[in-house]
Amino acid sequence: MHRKNPGTSSPWQNARIKPSAQRDPPVQASRPQQDGPARPPSAQRRGEEVRIYGRNACLAVFARRAQDVRKIYITEARIAEFKPVLAWCVKQRIGYRVVENADLDRLTESQHHEGVCFEVRRTPLLSVGELLQAIAREQPALLIWLDGVGNPHNVGALLRSAANFGARGAILPAGAPALPGAALRVAEGGAEAVPLAQARAGEDVFAALHAAGFAVAATVPRAGWDLYENELPDRLALILGAEGEGMSAHLIADADLRLTIPGTGAVESLNVSASAAVLFAEYWRQHH
Amino acid sequence: MHRKNPGTSSPWQNARIKPSAQRDPPVQASRPQQDGPARPPSAQRRGEEVRIYGRNACLAVFARRAQDVRKIYITEARIAEFKPVLAWCVKQRIGYRVVENADLDRLTESQHHEGVCFEVRRTPLLSVGELLQAIAREQPALLIWLDGVGNPHNVGALLRSAANFGARGAILPAGAPALPGAALRVAEGGAEAVPLAQARAGEDVFAALHAAGFAVAATVPRAGWDLYENELPDRLALILGAEGEGMSAHLIADADLRLTIPGTGAVESLNVSASAAVLFAEYWRQHH
Repeated sequence: MHRKNPGTSSPWQNARIKPSAQRDPPVQASRPQQDGPARPPSAQRRGEEVRIYGRNACLAVFARRAQDVRKIYITEARIAEFKPVLAWCVKQRIGYRVVENADLDRLTESQHHEGVCFEVRRTPLLSVGELLQAIAREQPALLIWLDGVGNPHNVGALLRSAANFGARGAILPAGAPALPGAALRVAEGGAEAVPLAQARAGEDVFAALHAAGFAVAATVPRAGWDLYENELPDRLALILGAEGEGMSAHLIADADLRLTIPGTGAVESLNVSASAAVLFAEYWRQHH
Repeated sequence: MHRKNPGTSSPWQNARIKPSAQRDPPVQASRPQQDGPARPPSAQRRGEEVRIYGRNACLAVFARRAQDVRKIYITEARIAEFKPVLAWCVKQRIGYRVVENADLDRLTESQHHEGVCFEVRRTPLLSVGELLQAIAREQPALLIWLDGVGNPHNVGALLRSAANFGARGAILPAGAPALPGAALRVAEGGAEAVPLAQARAGEDVFAALHAAGFAVAATVPRAGWDLYENELPDRLALILGAEGEGMSAHLIADADLRLTIPGTGAVESLNVSASAAVLFAEYWRQHH
């Protein structure tokens, strides 16, 4: 491992690469484990920073909020592509370190880092009210309301598709832990493009959405409105169950409309990220 | 572990559950490793049998081809739901064994078995000619042509969506290994509903598809025909790159049409399984 320090003081004094080759270290959970075995590892988090990895996720952070980058770990093979980023680092006196793949495996607790990892200041989550205020006059406007965030790959895939189809924000459930690096990597930069809000415990999100002129839709595997035989409202909040078990019954019951993606019935349902992509795409088709 | 043997002779004499707790045993590959690190483990295969696991994947096999079931491993917790299946086993003198979760972890080399694993005779792959013959008169007819099958989760997700939207078959590339249990599990039964064919080395699949009246479409991230501004042909073969790297340039160049899923540009592209779901869904919308 080579050290490159563009300044006179060392920004690396506190940056320790864990010496152990252990892949799944015991995690000091910062809050109760509510989500069962699929809960994302919270070891990615350290105070207000998060390790973001993967080429596209890192480039998206740099493009949108370079000022939040604290440290960069990169393999020799990735340097050429990140030259403008590293030049900026030198100018800003932000350190970068050229590391081996195995170091990144440990740092990111993943083998899908694609040779680059940024330590980045977390973007604070908005409140639901702040998100709705920011898009008060937008029409059309698609929002995502996540019911459960257990599987980071599902959440990441959702955010990638949401960014592609121009969703104006995503609401995370109250008490959900911060999105782990794996979700941000799978989102391929989508998590930088979709503003994230979080409900407060006990907050009436339905009332807030209705007051802001949003219709709330849930997806049900059968017997809802056929997605292709109905017009989707201009301002639409889609409830999506990012857990394996689908979404809460009370959310389905309270929704303004229940949508069903049609199909042969040969499988019980679509994967949540496939459903989400189909729903977002149809919203895009109808409103562009 | 309890043994339940409905007949007088033991169908279990050759069924050994691996004693080691090792999760990733060294694999005796039956053919050269062509697909790099993402290649599915071939340890699932043993001659003409495959271990299928996951509730929906197993139920789909039973519904469509119970005669191919050789052995069943099931946890106590799953028995109630599979009672009709197990009753059928007793009648047919097919053994089932009640096992612990940890046994299934080893048998399936996965923690996503959902408490059930079937050893099943593999459905032989069709030739491209046989598949096209079988759907010679169908209109509309959607086919999938996979360019690469490296990631079993991508392939499984594709097949699940393909089954939902009624694809009439999927063509696997020449030389691709048999689909592993992980792909079949993620497909949630979809692999039983979509007939699978495999190209032969050097076979001119384009010519065969054209002769059968299919237009061949590739998806490109930008500058293709906007998916929502064009009518999709009635008989359509969609090339999908199931690898991370997208599809082969020559397939894109030779395709009859290049489709682009529209979007904001905030992410470079959609995940292949999200793209596939959006494409299949739009084909369904236009043809139903």
